[in-house]
Amino acid sequence: MSPAAMAFKASILTLYPDMFPGHLGQALAGRALERGDWSLEAVQIRDFAVDKHRSVDDTPSGGGAGMVLRPDVLARAIDSIADDGRPRLLMSPRGRPLTQKRVRELAEGEGVVIVCGRFEGVDQRVIEARNLEEVSIGDYILSGGEPAALTLLDAVVRILPGVMGNQLSGVHESFEGGLLEHPHYTRPQVFEDREIPAVLTSGNHAAIEAWRHEEAEKLTAERRPDLLK
Amino acid sequence: MSPAAMAFKASILTLYPDMFPGHLGQALAGRALERGDWSLEAVQIRDFAVDKHRSVDDTPSGGGAGMVLRPDVLARAIDSIADDGRPRLLMSPRGRPLTQKRVRELAEGEGVVIVCGRFEGVDQRVIEARNLEEVSIGDYILSGGEPAALTLLDAVVRILPGVMGNQLSGVHESFEGGLLEHPHYTRPQVFEDREIPAVLTSGNHAAIEAWRHEEAEKLTAERRPDLLK
Repeated sequence: MSPAAMAFKASILTLYPDMFPGHLGQALAGRALERGDWSLEAVQIRDFAVDKHRSVDDTPSGGGAGMVLRPDVLARAIDSIADDGRPRLLMSPRGRPLTQKRVRELAEGEGVVIVCGRFEGVDQRVIEARNLEEVSIGDYILSGGEPAALTLLDAVVRILPGVMGNQLSGVHESFEGGLLEHPHYTRPQVFEDREIPAVLTSGNHAAIEAWRHEEAEKLTAERRPDLLK
Repeated sequence: MSPAAMAFKASILTLYPDMFPGHLGQALAGRALERGDWSLEAVQIRDFAVDKHRSVDDTPSGGGAGMVLRPDVLARAIDSIADDGRPRLLMSPRGRPLTQKRVRELAEGEGVVIVCGRFEGVDQRVIEARNLEEVSIGDYILSGGEPAALTLLDAVVRILPGVMGNQLSGVHESFEGGLLEHPHYTRPQVFEDREIPAVLTSGNHAAIEAWRHEEAEKLTAERRPDLLK
């Protein structure tokens, strides 16, 4: 297979295709996109509306505020994308929380199809009929799935082969050890009367490692006791 | 005070100012930005470098891979922004997890200053000296703080007065009740042989409420048992 055929492929279903590639068009992700290390297509859901008003949403069955994305319109949009086995995600605050483990699994695959919800939600039947995996990037409410999709893709693209090159190699990855990262210091030696902790400039590598581990444990206990369970 | 003087003000410190406003320049957030309901400035950290090579980072004290953002350079960049009492956030996987409660607090304030880290991290001394609040949007690693800052701002801008207008009023907010949202349905009545659950078209409002609550509890127990504690 040619390198181009193997490149990670992201297909986004959205009412706001102009939001893509957004920040992913810049810096390392942007250069990787230009090189063809990954590809991105944004599909306008509205193009698959079934009526002359191009409606994509309707009122919720059973009443309530907001509007719900219609299952028939979204199904047609999803079916316009070749079913090549890529996971289909639906960005939603109801989803399972995104983890670095899931990010790594996605980056090892051929790509991803991402549905961006808007309004109050998406009809449950299309979630089931098209096997959408609901994913949440955190416990806060966004204007829609687009910022979440861009965030997820940033995490995935960053670890695709070749994207970060040597910048990634050897870098200690937060969470990988189950602890938050220890504090970092660099030059200058004195900043506003604050010195770099003496142990870090001692040259004693065992002492440095021990200090860093202790600091990481302290920070994790303070901010994320849930990670220590 | 004039409405303009009261508008929510976001100042971003970044090595990639071109990533802003990104997706926040579109849709509701973009129209609100044009109307002046909120404002955004992106400040290039590199403009505050102290040497002729415009270096912003250096190797970590005590050894290790990656590079660390220099405290003196970042402090100068922060100090270029008027200290008007706005909270100063540092987007970082080491931070406290962002919650909808913190989003609401930020939206009720005058604005926010957000530092976007890159590289391995930021020198701990500038975090302490400039009182930076470390905030994490989730347990995954991004290429830098920029996607996180855009995501946080999307959540905040969405609930600023006037931004979503009637689209927000009355909409049930996920998490606000401590449960994930129940499934949604809308027309058509039959989608690929799947019908809308009969209770939702029964007209029995008490039964609809009971069904929705039960479904929300079931979904939360399955996906987010942590929320039920």
